[in-house]
Amino acid sequence: MDRDVRWHPPRVSRSARADLMRQKPCLLWYTGLSGAGKSTLANLVDERLYSIGRCTYVLDGDNVRHGLCKDLGFTEADRVENIRRVGEVARLMVDAGLIVGAAFISPFRADRRMVRALFDPGEFIEVHVDAPLAVAEARDPKGLYKRARSGDLKNFTGIDSPYEPPEDPERRVDAAGTTPEAAADQVIESLWRRGILPPAHVHWTVPDAYRDP
Amino acid sequence: MDRDVRWHPPRVSRSARADLMRQKPCLLWYTGLSGAGKSTLANLVDERLYSIGRCTYVLDGDNVRHGLCKDLGFTEADRVENIRRVGEVARLMVDAGLIVGAAFISPFRADRRMVRALFDPGEFIEVHVDAPLAVAEARDPKGLYKRARSGDLKNFTGIDSPYEPPEDPERRVDAAGTTPEAAADQVIESLWRRGILPPAHVHWTVPDAYRDP
Repeated sequence: MDRDVRWHPPRVSRSARADLMRQKPCLLWYTGLSGAGKSTLANLVDERLYSIGRCTYVLDGDNVRHGLCKDLGFTEADRVENIRRVGEVARLMVDAGLIVGAAFISPFRADRRMVRALFDPGEFIEVHVDAPLAVAEARDPKGLYKRARSGDLKNFTGIDSPYEPPEDPERRVDAAGTTPEAAADQVIESLWRRGILPPAHVHWTVPDAYRDP
Repeated sequence: MDRDVRWHPPRVSRSARADLMRQKPCLLWYTGLSGAGKSTLANLVDERLYSIGRCTYVLDGDNVRHGLCKDLGFTEADRVENIRRVGEVARLMVDAGLIVGAAFISPFRADRRMVRALFDPGEFIEVHVDAPLAVAEARDPKGLYKRARSGDLKNFTGIDSPYEPPEDPERRVDAAGTTPEAAADQVIESLWRRGILPPAHVHWTVPDAYRDP
């Protein structure tokens, strides 16, 4: 930036925007291997939040790459820039009051930390969609592992590029031993425990043990 | 993009998201010279929309450049990329159901056309914040014209870089002969005429002639 760029404070405060939507905005960041089920889980959670009247949106590696990030490839630098832009867009959306889901492999701790740093404490909720490589590779919904094994795709996470699992995620879901529906229940329960969702709204999703008598 | 990138259709449709917010999403694109009053107008309109319960957000050249576009400078290529990214973010926000304001000089017709093409008919509302160069330069709220005249800033719109006025904007406001408040009334009235806002919500902003008896 070589020009005099100043911040115009918005007239409508971020808390006012959230109040209008009657919710606590946050970013649910789904990280995990390709094929672990991040997008499926993010959309299932989103559907449940919608059904209880929450204003939400899902950012997805695949759909963002058709628009905002269509100029980026899959080199390390481009993957970092992809995550950076998604983090900044999520920040604007959370500022607008939305509960945002973002489903991205985001294999590197440094990149996820960069996104976390854009948010206030408690606003960034890291969800580790945890499946062993063997399970993700056996699913291979897009045939990408096959192409990576054949050498057709380079820098593929889990094959010739590392995945750094979160050390202390807000939520870990067992994406190999749990159905997507049960995993969505767990994420919703996390939101409830963290005060993002009021208990009355989630009776239908939380385990019996937490229900009112 | 050198990888197999597919579109994950979101489970919650865009119309469902808009219905939840009880509004018609759109993008108000404010274009005009530096100092014409784009951000002031965008924030005034936003404040009025908020006060009648609309879910909104304002994207602003200055605040976007601190985050999403902080890697971009002011070369022609970077300015095009800046507008492209803002258009893509606005598209995601409109998809999420919001009424978005975007205040950017956006001097070139081709760039504004590029953004318009991202939206369905009727969703992109171009507002020409029209002030003569002499008026904008006399205001010079950030001292940028002074710096451009002295040669300190290059490619400055109106000085050594052209501004291409919209040929057929959805709304033109006379930013030299109208108060910001009156200009905001005009924009709100446009939204009402276009069916973006239901008349009942805008009685307090539309001219007496349009009021119910």
